Amino acid sequence: MTQQMETTVDNGVNVAALLEARTALEAAPEAAQFKWRASCEWVEGVHSRSTIEGFFGLGEEQKHSRSFMIDADHPPQFAATDKGVTPVEIVLSGLASCLTAGVAAVAQNRGIQLRSVKANIEGDMDLAGILGIDADVRNGFKSIRVAFDIDADATSEEIAALVAQSQKRSAVFDIITNPCAVNVTVR
Amino acid sequence: MTQQMETTVDNGVNVAALLEARTALEAAPEAAQFKWRASCEWVEGVHSRSTIEGFFGLGEEQKHSRSFMIDADHPPQFAATDKGVTPVEIVLSGLASCLTAGVAAVAQNRGIQLRSVKANIEGDMDLAGILGIDADVRNGFKSIRVAFDIDADATSEEIAALVAQSQKRSAVFDIITNPCAVNVTVR
Repeated sequence: MTQQMETTVDNGVNVAALLEARTALEAAPEAAQFKWRASCEWVEGVHSRSTIEGFFGLGEEQKHSRSFMIDADHPPQFAATDKGVTPVEIVLSGLASCLTAGVAAVAQNRGIQLRSVKANIEGDMDLAGILGIDADVRNGFKSIRVAFDIDADATSEEIAALVAQSQKRSAVFDIITNPCAVNVTVR
Repeated sequence: MTQQMETTVDNGVNVAALLEARTALEAAPEAAQFKWRASCEWVEGVHSRSTIEGFFGLGEEQKHSRSFMIDADHPPQFAATDKGVTPVEIVLSGLASCLTAGVAAVAQNRGIQLRSVKANIEGDMDLAGILGIDADVRNGFKSIRVAFDIDADATSEEIAALVAQSQKRSAVFDIITNPCAVNVTVR
């Protein structure tokens, strides 16, 4: 008599639903056209508050289950009130969370159980850009580094492959590494 | 006898301190080298939590007055738990808040009193990219629109010029519209 140990990989990602969605959207390309939104209100100084709730997708207006808020500000080192993080830190958090979600989804799809995932992200910026000191210095990050610490039931090669695949399919990685057209208007 | 109405423009931005910082950093370029950071921990599924507290600048390690957290997740339409906003919405919020802070700072510098500023931001995304349906579709936004509603003691030309100057000096606008190198590693 043999005892069988049934192990079920569960990273909390519903891969079956995502694969079904892929099949459905392949058949209905219009449903795959999404519009993501935020609405940012100035509070005082360089403090603002973004509200995120509605988006468009699957052919109609959609909503998160509640509205979310993100406060942006600057720290006292910038003579500001530090009621929130800086906009560039918000962007770093967007990139780190996109890659982390990708790692979880890809791991689930490949049958790899994750125990912990942590992404440490850092971006280099020369303030001579935004302060207008040197026109040759860009306003944004010169470079960004993301270092993952991952504990999973997998070899280090399999873990490296998870991260590579996540990067390949990451919306935010694409937005930051490639140019994206932004149109700013005043109503 | 004439009565004088003294009006002081106050948008809550300490422009004097920022101009002093500019002069100081012009003389000490090393102090203008900043490193911004976030640390993102996987929670479950595609839900993660970023913590933001420390950064490097002015030649030494710095800290916000407290640590801040941003939760990222995906809505039920993606078979997820909706415990936070999507990473791409986080990025939109970063861009909107960067441009909004710029408007406030430039207005203060130009002596324009703001009464309200709201940035409505929207990004178009074809999910055929991230779902791997069509290799010719990018993962990120095809385009982003920012529409400002601004109430201020200024002409519409002056308001348009505020927004244009904010865009010119925006770190996040640069990060999104131009390529930025991202290096991802596993430790």
